Amino acid sequence: MVKRYLKLATLEEALLIIREAFPPMRFSETVAVEDSVGRISAGAVFASYSVPEVFLSAMDGIAVSSRDTRGASEQNPVALSDALRVNTGNVVPRGYDAVIMIEDVWEEEGCWIIRKPVAPWQHIRPAGEDIAETEMIIPSFHRIRPHDTGALATYGVTRIPVLTLRVGIIPTGSELVAPGTRPAPGQVVESNTLMASAWLSSLGARCTRYPITPDDPDEIRRVITLAAEEQDMVVVSAGSSAGTKDYTVDVIASLGEVLLHGVSIKPGKPVIVGNIGGKPVMGMPGYPLSAVTVLREIATPLLAHYGLTPPDPVVLTARLTQTLHSDVGTDEFVLLSVGKIRGEWVASPQSRGSGVQMSGVRSNAYLRIPNRTEGFESGEMVRVNLMVPPSVAEAALLVTGSHDPALDHLADMIRPGGVVVHSTHAGSMGGVLALKRNDCHAAPMHLLSPAGEYNVPFIQRYLPGEDIALVTIADREQGIVSRDGLSLEDLPGHSFVNRQKGSGTRILLDYELQKRGIDPAAIQGYDREVTTHTAVALAVRSGEVDAGMCVYSAAKAYGLPFVPVASERYELAIREEELDDPRIATLLDAVRSDRFRTVLTGLGGYDTRLTGTLHRVPR
Amino acid sequence: MVKRYLKLATLEEALLIIREAFPPMRFSETVAVEDSVGRISAGAVFASYSVPEVFLSAMDGIAVSSRDTRGASEQNPVALSDALRVNTGNVVPRGYDAVIMIEDVWEEEGCWIIRKPVAPWQHIRPAGEDIAETEMIIPSFHRIRPHDTGALATYGVTRIPVLTLRVGIIPTGSELVAPGTRPAPGQVVESNTLMASAWLSSLGARCTRYPITPDDPDEIRRVITLAAEEQDMVVVSAGSSAGTKDYTVDVIASLGEVLLHGVSIKPGKPVIVGNIGGKPVMGMPGYPLSAVTVLREIATPLLAHYGLTPPDPVVLTARLTQTLHSDVGTDEFVLLSVGKIRGEWVASPQSRGSGVQMSGVRSNAYLRIPNRTEGFESGEMVRVNLMVPPSVAEAALLVTGSHDPALDHLADMIRPGGVVVHSTHAGSMGGVLALKRNDCHAAPMHLLSPAGEYNVPFIQRYLPGEDIALVTIADREQGIVSRDGLSLEDLPGHSFVNRQKGSGTRILLDYELQKRGIDPAAIQGYDREVTTHTAVALAVRSGEVDAGMCVYSAAKAYGLPFVPVASERYELAIREEELDDPRIATLLDAVRSDRFRTVLTGLGGYDTRLTGTLHRVPR
Repeated sequence: MVKRYLKLATLEEALLIIREAFPPMRFSETVAVEDSVGRISAGAVFASYSVPEVFLSAMDGIAVSSRDTRGASEQNPVALSDALRVNTGNVVPRGYDAVIMIEDVWEEEGCWIIRKPVAPWQHIRPAGEDIAETEMIIPSFHRIRPHDTGALATYGVTRIPVLTLRVGIIPTGSELVAPGTRPAPGQVVESNTLMASAWLSSLGARCTRYPITPDDPDEIRRVITLAAEEQDMVVVSAGSSAGTKDYTVDVIASLGEVLLHGVSIKPGKPVIVGNIGGKPVMGMPGYPLSAVTVLREIATPLLAHYGLTPPDPVVLTARLTQTLHSDVGTDEFVLLSVGKIRGEWVASPQSRGSGVQMSGVRSNAYLRIPNRTEGFESGEMVRVNLMVPPSVAEAALLVTGSHDPALDHLADMIRPGGVVVHSTHAGSMGGVLALKRNDCHAAPMHLLSPAGEYNVPFIQRYLPGEDIALVTIADREQGIVSRDGLSLEDLPGHSFVNRQKGSGTRILLDYELQKRGIDPAAIQGYDREVTTHTAVALAVRSGEVDAGMCVYSAAKAYGLPFVPVASERYELAIREEELDDPRIATLLDAVRSDRFRTVLTGLGGYDTRLTGTLHRVPR
Repeated sequence: MVKRYLKLATLEEALLIIREAFPPMRFSETVAVEDSVGRISAGAVFASYSVPEVFLSAMDGIAVSSRDTRGASEQNPVALSDALRVNTGNVVPRGYDAVIMIEDVWEEEGCWIIRKPVAPWQHIRPAGEDIAETEMIIPSFHRIRPHDTGALATYGVTRIPVLTLRVGIIPTGSELVAPGTRPAPGQVVESNTLMASAWLSSLGARCTRYPITPDDPDEIRRVITLAAEEQDMVVVSAGSSAGTKDYTVDVIASLGEVLLHGVSIKPGKPVIVGNIGGKPVMGMPGYPLSAVTVLREIATPLLAHYGLTPPDPVVLTARLTQTLHSDVGTDEFVLLSVGKIRGEWVASPQSRGSGVQMSGVRSNAYLRIPNRTEGFESGEMVRVNLMVPPSVAEAALLVTGSHDPALDHLADMIRPGGVVVHSTHAGSMGGVLALKRNDCHAAPMHLLSPAGEYNVPFIQRYLPGEDIALVTIADREQGIVSRDGLSLEDLPGHSFVNRQKGSGTRILLDYELQKRGIDPAAIQGYDREVTTHTAVALAVRSGEVDAGMCVYSAAKAYGLPFVPVASERYELAIREEELDDPRIATLLDAVRSDRFRTVLTGLGGYDTRLTGTLHRVPR
């Protein structure tokens, strides 16, 4: 029996259904003032005493009776015998009604000499100047800032009611193992409830993660029943799509009411929202990026409905680097790397596979393709939501092109200097074309011309008349990775995994095959493509294929035999005008550092004699 | 002996001295991934295994060998006998190289029927698709977002090194009592280290508050020595100004080096920065707003120097409602209430007294008067830094004019609806003038004309030709508050506290005194002014004065006798064009609610028969 989503609500409809189903109740807990930063007050807080409660000196000086100072002048100094030395904050006793600053008095023989009169109440803080008993310190729904905590403590408040929502989060799935456990094949680390807890807690919810519940409808029913009793809201992780073992929706239906099963969003379509005893029970899809989308687009508005408002969105307009098609009727959310190139915001879409959790880590923004549109064209200006502070997006350095493990290390080296590298593995030709379209700051490349020259002929051909510099990362060794020490000549008859068309490694392979007269058609898997050196080495190590071509460092990282094929020049292509950009300058400093040479030596297979040299490509 | 600050550094000089004195070291601690949100990674984190480690199905469907599907079509369906039913995420065993979605197959007699062929690797997630072993998950200095935690857990990371700084915070002062203790006269609640801890912790520091240390140089030396050993940085609260009992600077000088004693900022001038054994030791002034300024302007950049970067500033340009003078040579920071009035951002300065801690609570922004300028003129456009998210500043409703305790309750009632009231106690005339200048949204007022009419004549005179509506809060009782049941006629011969000129209460008092033929000069303290009803009642209760004039609710709140003088109409003046503004509409809904009538009845002294009625003032 194949279950389907018959009636999909749009996102707007879904949010309306949710708002109408659940009254906007207020749930609160009491926390110590010192732990209240970022929380939202659940009620007004009033001062239980005045501050100050009595009259205080506002200065270091002497307390006087203003009447005693009458007539004082430069010509006729007055000596005060019953003035009282006070420091700032000292009580001014009855009988004194003014304070004179210590700088304006002279002490002589036990008396204080003054040379001008003072007005009553000068430099005196009246009782209640700061706050009077019964006055309101903060109203309801005030988000506590660090400095508010000091004021609350000053006015006698040590604990404060703040908004919260008790959320029970239930991981379901027989394939799940706890975080910290290395998953066996077919097992998955149960990270979604950890992430959901982190997400909802950051909004002020009080989250409880229940133990992993296997795919057993009775067990799932038992835990959901328990959580719906103990909590204000329940999130059931996974078990919400239409696979054979997805019981969540039936359990919710039997315990209460299913309000929504499936919402026309992507990723995140299989979400469930139900109502058990007046409490929202949400089924969150298992794919991590689907789960994130559901948390952001559905759970977050639901928490806001209960007063737990999220941070303000930070929105900007950016030029899209790729055409994005999307189904009409579906709100699709696409993760992006956003950066500023030559003064213009540019948005480069990440992989849209909802199983690639790293896309979320690599992204600094997302965009929504509204359900009324078929998508956006490359070059179109689109509104994007930042997932990092604006200053971090401003610091993004978009690096698009050929992949090398050393790039990760460079990214790590320059992050403390404030530069955030966003790498897109597009292959060398992809990088050259991205640089041409101003879609990236730097394009790592290693493209061999038929004449045997690296990179320069390709820049001259694809960016004619433009001023481009090439910065050498290293001369690096490419070769055949295998479990059995295979060489290029051994490839026919063995299974193989290739790099994508346009990658420098693919071009190098074809060049070397042709030179040796080997027919690519004789290589089983020649058409199968992955996009990184590590993916090639991994396919070999896992036994999926017998061989592939990659850099030495990838083979070494996995402890695999490596038979060299050729040394090649791996360089960064950068527009000359960008060399002064602080982000580029920081990158080049790192490339030229001793530390980077040490990194390359450690990775292995890099000749660093030319590392960091820069040459301008003749137009 | 009077100590003075001989050489004051400017703020820029101070920050440069600090940066040069302390190398930008990195301090880290290891936390559980689920507790890492908002923290900054102290090092790159790499995947210790690939995800997935083997080939997985990307769909619910059947795993097949693509070769077996060749030739399938609508006309020639193919029955597959050794296909394998798989759900999303299941392992695809060796021998299978593609998955067909369950929607595209038909089950018949134990076989799966397909009607088109599939390409190899369709709907299969290759090993390492998400991340490959040894690849970098996040670099150093990456601020962990909620969704990052899930990815880290998926890739086997359960604990992560994050940046921190161990900060020891020492409260000094014999006048201090612990939070939660009601201070006796002359005592102060020790709230500054609580606030400093909340502030620095929000930036990622690990704070330890030491016990309150009395003004004893030996004891202060002992605790600073201990903290400088145990911590990476030390903050000594108070003891940094030039009063008689300020020992901090001498102690620091004897244990290490004083880099700065006094910085030309206001508030916050008496800050100390020293170096004990290579660790920064900061003396933080005792006035709360001085402490806040020092935390924000000096401690925060110092933490950023150690990698603990603060949130991005949110800056906007606003029209200043008052002229602000400031000394050349001093960077002065002024707290503000900022709101949007008729499409324009308006910034209204708070009290500049550094002892008024409530100014910080009431503010949503601040501005800096740079040390090269003498200040800003009223009406000048100034750059302000928000202390709340932009959406909260957008929700500000500036209410300027006559004070009434009921306004606090109104503010509390409408805060959950998203409206943030900023009240300025300027007296009725102050409110009318603020409304005229578009410096506020609503002006609460109760101004009695010589002809005995409330409010209307003043609007007609000060806002001629403008369309203004008056919304009645209530008719309220004004009278004489005292400890002994004094009446208006009893005032001569008793001590008194007055309200400020331009306040409706002052005008009403003068009107009633004149009616009764009482000479104001006969009232002792007639010239002494406070700005709220509660301040009047408090001065009476504390015994500072015998009597004052205020509304009944203020006398009732303090349990004081009250002898009525007159009933008056307390109203909100609002521009008619603003009545449709959602903030105003929310306010008016609250004024007209049953709940507000209940509040007024509870406070006492309000006749609510006209509450919520609106009348337009004839031009």
